[in-house]
Amino acid sequence: MNIPETGKKRVVIIGGGFAGLHLARNLNDRYFQIVMIDKNNYHTFQPLLYQVATAGLEPDSIAYPLRKLFKGSKDFYFRMAEVDRVDTEQKRLHTNIGEVTFDYLIIATGTTTNFFGNRELEQNAMTMKSVSEALDLRSLILQNFEKALLKSAVSEQDALMSIAIVGAGPTGVELAGALAELKKHVLPHDYPDLNINRMQVYLIEMADRVLPPMSSVASSKALDYLKKLGVNVILNEAVESYRDHRVMLKSGKELNAAMMIWAAGVKGNLLPGMNEEAVKYNRYEVNRYHLVKGEESVYAIGDVAYMETEEFPHGLPMLAPVANQSGGNLAKHLNYLQQARSQTVKEFEYFDKGVMATVGRNKAVADLKKLKFGGLFAWLIWMFVHLLSLVGFRNRLITFFNWTYNYFNFDRGIRLIIRKFERN
Amino acid sequence: MNIPETGKKRVVIIGGGFAGLHLARNLNDRYFQIVMIDKNNYHTFQPLLYQVATAGLEPDSIAYPLRKLFKGSKDFYFRMAEVDRVDTEQKRLHTNIGEVTFDYLIIATGTTTNFFGNRELEQNAMTMKSVSEALDLRSLILQNFEKALLKSAVSEQDALMSIAIVGAGPTGVELAGALAELKKHVLPHDYPDLNINRMQVYLIEMADRVLPPMSSVASSKALDYLKKLGVNVILNEAVESYRDHRVMLKSGKELNAAMMIWAAGVKGNLLPGMNEEAVKYNRYEVNRYHLVKGEESVYAIGDVAYMETEEFPHGLPMLAPVANQSGGNLAKHLNYLQQARSQTVKEFEYFDKGVMATVGRNKAVADLKKLKFGGLFAWLIWMFVHLLSLVGFRNRLITFFNWTYNYFNFDRGIRLIIRKFERN
Repeated sequence: MNIPETGKKRVVIIGGGFAGLHLARNLNDRYFQIVMIDKNNYHTFQPLLYQVATAGLEPDSIAYPLRKLFKGSKDFYFRMAEVDRVDTEQKRLHTNIGEVTFDYLIIATGTTTNFFGNRELEQNAMTMKSVSEALDLRSLILQNFEKALLKSAVSEQDALMSIAIVGAGPTGVELAGALAELKKHVLPHDYPDLNINRMQVYLIEMADRVLPPMSSVASSKALDYLKKLGVNVILNEAVESYRDHRVMLKSGKELNAAMMIWAAGVKGNLLPGMNEEAVKYNRYEVNRYHLVKGEESVYAIGDVAYMETEEFPHGLPMLAPVANQSGGNLAKHLNYLQQARSQTVKEFEYFDKGVMATVGRNKAVADLKKLKFGGLFAWLIWMFVHLLSLVGFRNRLITFFNWTYNYFNFDRGIRLIIRKFERN
Repeated sequence: MNIPETGKKRVVIIGGGFAGLHLARNLNDRYFQIVMIDKNNYHTFQPLLYQVATAGLEPDSIAYPLRKLFKGSKDFYFRMAEVDRVDTEQKRLHTNIGEVTFDYLIIATGTTTNFFGNRELEQNAMTMKSVSEALDLRSLILQNFEKALLKSAVSEQDALMSIAIVGAGPTGVELAGALAELKKHVLPHDYPDLNINRMQVYLIEMADRVLPPMSSVASSKALDYLKKLGVNVILNEAVESYRDHRVMLKSGKELNAAMMIWAAGVKGNLLPGMNEEAVKYNRYEVNRYHLVKGEESVYAIGDVAYMETEEFPHGLPMLAPVANQSGGNLAKHLNYLQQARSQTVKEFEYFDKGVMATVGRNKAVADLKKLKFGGLFAWLIWMFVHLLSLVGFRNRLITFFNWTYNYFNFDRGIRLIIRKFERN
C-alpha cells in the first residue's frame, strides 16, 4: 500500500463513517500514524440518503470527500480499498490493493442490508444503504413513471406507480413521507396524463406500530402524520415473497407495486478472517473499551459493534450519536494508552440526547429524555440538528439552500435519470 | 406511445437540447400538439459539462428536468425514448417504446463525438458529450490518482496523474484550464504523498493555434493564459494512436498519460431511415427555413443541421446561440404556416452576438462583433452570460453558489467517486 514506516504506532481504521471519522479526528498524531480505509473516497451522511432517493438533494449535499476532511493532517493516509481478510495473529490486513500491518485495528464498517436469508427478496427488492443505491432508487422511481405512461391497462399503470416500503423504522417512515410529498406536490405536474391518485405508497411493518424503537407517543403521532399524507400503513404484517410486481404478505393479502424498498433489517459488515466467537447478533461483541471479544488490538465502534451497558442491557442502539461518541471515546482511550500515564478512560457510557424522525413537510416526532413531542417544532429541531450534523460548511449551506428552495416551491428539483437503473 | 389524437397537427421533436427547447416553447399550442422525445428526461447545458467533469458542479446545476420545464403546457407530451428509424413516407417514427405518427418532424438531435473512423481511439479515449460521460471523467481522474499512490515506479505515477486532451476548441481549452486549476489548488492538498508537480496536462491541436474558430487575438491570449497555468500546449500535431497509457503523435513523439480526452471532433446524430442525400458533412442539409433537403415535412435545427447563408457560406457554426435562434425561428415559421395567413418568416439569419471561452480563474477571451478582448472583464462577462443562459432559476442559483464558494475557497468540493468508471 506504499505507506511509510514512521516509527509511530499505526492505527488502521476500516470505514470513514461517523465512528471512524470521530476516531480519526481525535487521535493524537504525535503518537499515531493513521491509515483510513474505505471503499468510497467520501463520507456518507446516511440519515439523509432518503432525500437523495426522492430527488430532494444531490450526492454533494450528503457526501464529503474524506481526503478533504483530513487535509493538512500529519501522518494520515487514506486508501480507497476493500478488505479481503484480517489476519489478527500477524496483525496484517489484506485488501484488494495490497497489505498493511497494524498495531491497532479499528473496525468501523457499519452495516449492510439484512434479508434474513431470503434470496428472492434480495434479488427483487431495492435497498438504500449507499449513495449509489439511493441514486438507483431515484432513477427507478422515475423510470417506472415513464413506463406507466406507455401502458393502457390500468392495473399495470397502478403497479408501476406504486411503491411498497418494508420496515417502518426511521428510514422507512422518512422515505414514505418523502414519497407521499412527491405524490402530492410534484408528480401530478410532471405526469398530467397519469392519474396520480392511483399511486400507492405502502408501508409494511411487522410490529404493531410504526417507529417501534421510539416511544408510543412518537409512534401514534407518526402514524397520524403518515395517514394524513395518504400513506397506506400496514401493521402486524410481514412480506412472504416478491416477484412480478406483486408483494405477497404473510396474511395472504397481495399488493401491486413495481418497486419494493427493503428497510426492514441490517446486519454488521463482518470481515473474513475475524474470530467467529466475537460475533453476537451479526455484530462484533465489544467490551466497555470497544475491544472486540477475544482480541488484544482489534476494536470495533459504531453500528458494527455490539456493546451491552447497564442502561442498555440488549446492546446500544445503532444510531449516529452512538457511533460519534464511541469513536471519540476510543480515541481518548488509545491516546491515554500511548501516553503511558496513569490516566485512563472510564467505561464507555452512551449519553442519549434523544431520537427523532421526520414525516414529510412540517412534521416530525422527537423523543427526548423527558419530553416526547411532535409537529412543526419537532420538525424545525430535526432540520436544525441534521444541518449542523452534516460534515463541512459547504454541505450545510448547499443542503440548506435546497431545503429552502424545495420548501417554498413545493418542489424536488433533481428529477434526473442520470444513469438508468437496470437489474442485473 | 399512448398519445391521444386531439385533431391538431402533431409536431414531433427529437431532442431536448437548446434547439428543441426553443422550438417547443415557441410553438403555439392552439395549432399544434407537441411530442418531445429525448433519451434523457432532462435538458443538458453542455457548455458547462467540463465543470461537472472537474468536480466543480453536480449534475443538478446543468441538467434540468424536461417535464418540469413544460409543466402546465397544454397538449404537450414528453417521452423518454431512443429513435430506431424514421419513416418519412408514412410520416411515422419508430422508437424503442413504440411508434408515433407526425405531421411535422423536427430533428434536433445534436452531435456525437467523431473519431473519424479510428476504432482504437474510440475504445481507449474518454469523451465528454453527456452528463454521465462527464461523471465518468470525474471518477476516472480521481481513480487514477488513487492508483498512482500505490505505484513505486515514478514513470507509472506520472502517467496516472497525467491527462492528454485532444482538440483545442472551446471544450478542450476550458477543460485544460479547469484541470490546471485542480492541479494548482486542490490536488496537492488531497494527495500530499504525491509530487503533483509531475502531473502534466497536455493540450494537443492540429491547427497552428488554440481556439481555431476564434480570432487570432483570442487564440494568442488563450495560449498565453494556458501556458501561465502550466498547460503543455502542443500545436500543429495530431494523435496517431493511444494505448497502454501512451499517446503516440503523428510526429513520432510520445506522451505518457493514463487518460486521453477526445475533444477533436463531432458529427451529427443522424437517424436511420433518413434520406442519405440530405447528409452533408455528417449533418442534415437544410434550406433557410430549416427544411431538410428533399423532404416536405422534416426539419432539422441546431448542431445537426447544416445551413449555408451569405454570411456563413461554409455553414453556420455549431453553437448554442445558433440552436436557440433557429429553434425560435422555426417555431415562428410553423405558427405562421398554420395560421394560414399571408404573413411568413424571412429566410433565417443568424445574429452573431460573439463567442467566448474561459481559461481558468479570472481569465477568458471574447470575440464580439467589433471588439476582441480578454482577461478579468471577459471572465466576468463569461460567467454572467453562462449563468443567465442556464435554464431555470434553481440551476442559476445553485451554480452561482458553487462558483462563489469555489472561487473564494480555491476549491472544487465534489471530488466524489460515486460510481467507479470501468472500461467495458
